[in-house]
Amino acid sequence: MMLKATIDADILKESIDAISALVTECRLHTDETGISTRAVDTANVAMISFHLKKEAFESFSSTKSELGLDIAKIKNIFGMMGKENLLALELPDEGHKLKVSFEGYQYSITLLDPNTIRKDPNIPNINLPGKVVLSGSELNNAIKAAAVVSDKIALGIDPATQTFYMVAEGDTDHIRREFGKTEVNFINGAEARSLFSLDYLKDMGKVMSRAEEVELSLGIDHPANFSFYLAGGNGHVEYLLAPRIEAD
Amino acid sequence: MMLKATIDADILKESIDAISALVTECRLHTDETGISTRAVDTANVAMISFHLKKEAFESFSSTKSELGLDIAKIKNIFGMMGKENLLALELPDEGHKLKVSFEGYQYSITLLDPNTIRKDPNIPNINLPGKVVLSGSELNNAIKAAAVVSDKIALGIDPATQTFYMVAEGDTDHIRREFGKTEVNFINGAEARSLFSLDYLKDMGKVMSRAEEVELSLGIDHPANFSFYLAGGNGHVEYLLAPRIEAD
Amino acid sequence: MMLKATIDADILKESIDAISALVTECRLHTDETGISTRAVDTANVAMISFHLKKEAFESFSSTKSELGLDIAKIKNIFGMMGKENLLALELPDEGHKLKVSFEGYQYSITLLDPNTIRKDPNIPNINLPGKVVLSGSELNNAIKAAAVVSDKIALGIDPATQTFYMVAEGDTDHIRREFGKTEVNFINGAEARSLFSLDYLKDMGKVMSRAEEVELSLGIDHPANFSFYLAGGNGHVEYLLAPRIEAD
Repeated sequence: MMLKATIDADILKESIDAISALVTECRLHTDETGISTRAVDTANVAMISFHLKKEAFESFSSTKSELGLDIAKIKNIFGMMGKENLLALELPDEGHKLKVSFEGYQYSITLLDPNTIRKDPNIPNINLPGKVVLSGSELNNAIKAAAVVSDKIALGIDPATQTFYMVAEGDTDHIRREFGKTEVNFINGAEARSLFSLDYLKDMGKVMSRAEEVELSLGIDHPANFSFYLAGGNGHVEYLLAPRIEAD
Repeated sequence: MMLKATIDADILKESIDAISALVTECRLHTDETGISTRAVDTANVAMISFHLKKEAFESFSSTKSELGLDIAKIKNIFGMMGKENLLALELPDEGHKLKVSFEGYQYSITLLDPNTIRKDPNIPNINLPGKVVLSGSELNNAIKAAAVVSDKIALGIDPATQTFYMVAEGDTDHIRREFGKTEVNFINGAEARSLFSLDYLKDMGKVMSRAEEVELSLGIDHPANFSFYLAGGNGHVEYLLAPRIEAD
Repeated sequence: MMLKATIDADILKESIDAISALVTECRLHTDETGISTRAVDTANVAMISFHLKKEAFESFSSTKSELGLDIAKIKNIFGMMGKENLLALELPDEGHKLKVSFEGYQYSITLLDPNTIRKDPNIPNINLPGKVVLSGSELNNAIKAAAVVSDKIALGIDPATQTFYMVAEGDTDHIRREFGKTEVNFINGAEARSLFSLDYLKDMGKVMSRAEEVELSLGIDHPANFSFYLAGGNGHVEYLLAPRIEAD
């Protein structure tokens, strides 16, 4: 058996949601320690690095292998499920059909050929000196508020006032959200300010809203890195988002 | 007075929902024992036989007559109603306007001429040897799960394993739901398997989901018959659904 | 400072909803006693007179001035807000940007030039002898029920039976809602009957549904005047709605 595991449906859903914020298919790597994936969106603007330890599963055994996953098909399962919430996953050696069982149902999903999916991207070597840790739901609320007036948002750190700020400028209106010392834990208050597309941030924000803490790393006109845990600490996500050019 | 009755709105709603799963208008037969209708959908694929005993009403008196009912107009009432839930129905002799009263409202519905509605279909004489009784909500859940991967579903009985199964095949995926002895009461485990359109089953499934028990009769490439009670046993519905040709 | 105030978000929302039932922008008058507006819809069918006393605010100070308000922009705020519900409003002297602060957010809204907005309409001098006081939610329920069968509704008072009635005629159906003495307080049971567009009444009805009492003044083929309080009695709304010609 290439893969044989049972997992709480909520944990799998949280994991799949994190991936599907950026891509519709991915190369899933499995080995005896768990599963992981790394993928960039089609426009090369955002990257996800995802890892789920075997401790996140009820039971887990896997050989080292690579699976091509159609995310939408996995999402279908959650629409089918009732109250009970344990999923069994099974993939025979040399198999290309993943069997998902739950509540008397047997759902068979044909896997994609991993070679048809983009190779794992390399993690770029970027120095992001500004670091701030804040609540995922507060971060998501600010992203949603910004999206009401604009399609882009500036994220920045002001070392003088020790504040993290998010600013969105609309045609005639603007909105600013400041997080002072009582709302964030500064790890490193270096000056930072970059502009980002809200298209991406809105999808990421929904996922991050469930995380108690998100560690955000920023530079000046540099990418942003959002790092957070899920599945009770047994899952980890990093989103790396490229900046937009700030028009004057 | 041709018809004078009061009825709990929930019971009338359940009854109208059962009929509207297949048709938008019907010939309603009334006599001193209650009301009934039999109708086929426009494509001649599905038939409903419906009967509601006078015991389902708070009060009921009727002469033998035939009413042409526009189902959508009756459904409008439920959108108008508040918390209180007793409806009074009144149809004068020779009248063609049904008066529906509730909570200070008087709603007058012009009936259709019964002669403009298709004649009551005959019940075909079909032998369906496979019989199984199962929970309406489990049946509906399996229908909804199948609809995620396909537009048709096979229903079958395997006498060897004494299981009832539902299988839907998508382009690349398939889903199978098996009901073993602990989930169903077999009345007759004769071998059966037929393919049905999920278009029809989805609408029927919503209605059947409220029934504690649905008696399902099947054959091999034959119609399926779904029989169940509503209104605390005072109402009865039978859906007869034609099979689709199984393509190889 | 031209205006500096704090207000419970629910009270501001209720007020803005009352105005936005008719218009998308308005001239808001402020002085030391509170804020007010009077506006007609673009088709000149309905007028709102709105007043919110300074007692409706947590704190309030204002000079006499006129603000051009884009209603949609104010409504955006409610979509951004979380649980906490105190809004601070601030408009500097000679300023044309209204600052709205809440929960760490600063939202800056560019005001419209009041001269680009229609002048305040005069209140026409109309004698409406029929008066009835009834529950706003009952009134709204009857409006919703009428909208199911027609796009217009007759409102009338029958002095003989001391009833207020609402009648909607569809192509084949009609619905009538009568309010007897137990459901309304008659102030003046003069005969009245006029026909009104449900397009307008549906939007007004949603707003009025929150008012415990609505005072409705009617004539024969004359406008209707709906008068009610909000914000615990510190806000007052009057809707004046022109009648439609009753076709025979």
